[in-house]
Amino acid sequence: MPGIAGEDLEGVFVLKTLGDALHIKRYIEETECRRAIVVGAGFIGLEMCENMRARGIAVQMVHRGDLPAQRWDPDMGREILAALENRGVDFLAQTRILSIEQGTAYRLRLNTDHGPLEGDLILLAVGVKPDARLARDMGLALGDSGAIRVNLSQQTSRENVYAVGDCAESYHRVSRRWVNIPLGDIANKQGRIAGSNIGGTPRLFPGIVGAQSFRIFHMEAAATGLNEKEARESGYTPVSALLWGNAAANAMSEPKRLGMKLIADQSTGRLLGAQALGEAGAVGRINALSVALWSGLTLEDVYNLDLAYSPPFGGSWDIIHNVARTLLQKR
Amino acid sequence: MPGIAGEDLEGVFVLKTLGDALHIKRYIEETECRRAIVVGAGFIGLEMCENMRARGIAVQMVHRGDLPAQRWDPDMGREILAALENRGVDFLAQTRILSIEQGTAYRLRLNTDHGPLEGDLILLAVGVKPDARLARDMGLALGDSGAIRVNLSQQTSRENVYAVGDCAESYHRVSRRWVNIPLGDIANKQGRIAGSNIGGTPRLFPGIVGAQSFRIFHMEAAATGLNEKEARESGYTPVSALLWGNAAANAMSEPKRLGMKLIADQSTGRLLGAQALGEAGAVGRINALSVALWSGLTLEDVYNLDLAYSPPFGGSWDIIHNVARTLLQKR
Repeated sequence: MPGIAGEDLEGVFVLKTLGDALHIKRYIEETECRRAIVVGAGFIGLEMCENMRARGIAVQMVHRGDLPAQRWDPDMGREILAALENRGVDFLAQTRILSIEQGTAYRLRLNTDHGPLEGDLILLAVGVKPDARLARDMGLALGDSGAIRVNLSQQTSRENVYAVGDCAESYHRVSRRWVNIPLGDIANKQGRIAGSNIGGTPRLFPGIVGAQSFRIFHMEAAATGLNEKEARESGYTPVSALLWGNAAANAMSEPKRLGMKLIADQSTGRLLGAQALGEAGAVGRINALSVALWSGLTLEDVYNLDLAYSPPFGGSWDIIHNVARTLLQKR
Repeated sequence: MPGIAGEDLEGVFVLKTLGDALHIKRYIEETECRRAIVVGAGFIGLEMCENMRARGIAVQMVHRGDLPAQRWDPDMGREILAALENRGVDFLAQTRILSIEQGTAYRLRLNTDHGPLEGDLILLAVGVKPDARLARDMGLALGDSGAIRVNLSQQTSRENVYAVGDCAESYHRVSRRWVNIPLGDIANKQGRIAGSNIGGTPRLFPGIVGAQSFRIFHMEAAATGLNEKEARESGYTPVSALLWGNAAANAMSEPKRLGMKLIADQSTGRLLGAQALGEAGAVGRINALSVALWSGLTLEDVYNLDLAYSPPFGGSWDIIHNVARTLLQKR
């Protein structure tokens, strides 16, 4: 909770547990919710926009930054914004929330530094932080990210104490830093590793590459590796190219718009990251590039990759090859 | 052409060029074609089944082998057959064609070793062979596959003569053999490599992993690497696992059936191949596994891969992870 006045009013929600979801659903039904305000433009906020629009609820999204989905670079973020606005979401950028009170036209009023907004429901989807309270109380070491420091066996700074999931750090194979990326698939994998080590069978968690995805209405959004800012912070000299094309071959009767951005290191040619947004084929391609990152492939490798070509699913030169070529020519 | 009597009759087609496609389309329209016989169950035959069924034409498929899509192992081939039959295609296995003549109930009659069949159109989609006539006439070396032997620069056995595409061989990174896989994406890549070398900029073609895909009605079929037979022939000791699951998370309201088979080498644990068939998500996952093959990853790597999880596109343990785990436990 952000800690503002009125955040405990009826109709103000967070979405963290299954119980939260059930409460929101019941509230929407019982109050015949007409308009919702979503604070925060991360995965949870974006996914809730889609679900509330599907119920016919008007949605305003309030965000401190300029663009939704901060992990995506601004060139891709603008396209995600367009997808939101295309489905009737009113996006308010650079807006800070101040307090919540009873509304007049709608049940609740959210005061912001750009004036008041009204809605029947307010979802606070901001401020995701690792919950390391127990570890801190025990005196365990925390990492720079604020999450619990672990080693490759998921062991904390204290013998016989292991940590996994959203509260713990993970080794990022591209930045070679320990980071906190709170996603369910990482938590699941780390849980098995810790369990195996606790049970006496040594196993290591080989780390992550930052693969993630979400659906935004009819679009797939997916990204992997580092974005340009993260690449610079890691010491790389990122160069990038973004192409818009077709998730199917151009000969197919129904084109499916797909954008793909690749980021590589100027000196070594190593692939550093990728971002995609499209009506189809974004997640599968980002998964292929996640494996490329996992293996440390270069742009030249990516340009030559043997992918499962057929016209319904791509061109004989896939958009992955085309962006790689564009970027090779830039370097 | 298979060289049988009557193969030159009107209404008997092959599909190799754009002109062939236009002739077939015009013939279907002018004759009000009601029933077609497709000979051969490779990519061309399978894709034509779909398109003729979409026009409301009854389709019989005649095949020398037991199952369609021979490159897929029998356990996956049976599922491809079920997808065909589900959409009303009548599949005749183990059937050899003998001759073609005028029909009675329909325009044409195809005599087979299992008796006659009738249809208004017969498509011969069999006998794909590399067309190496020019090379043979020039005295260039051919490979064991019957296609033109080339080196990593796409150079033939004669200096200043290059070959690319369906008539040439390619280096397979998993079997470490030179093979002939006549697909448009490989031809395109080799063309650029040859052009670069001819133009004076040396570049190598790093080879293929055997990635391929096709759509069969509402299903995606994709495969990469070696099948079990090819793996054995290459000297590996293949072990495999096949799981049926969901291309989305189970919490999503619309499950999308997806089958995934992994093949690995028993002694080294190296991934050797993968085959997938599903209502969604087969091609993208096979592309990810193609990159894993490209990089020589092991099953343990595959089990740990960081993929772009979100519920519309997979579970927190993707089917890739689940099959890898099943196979790791078998080994």
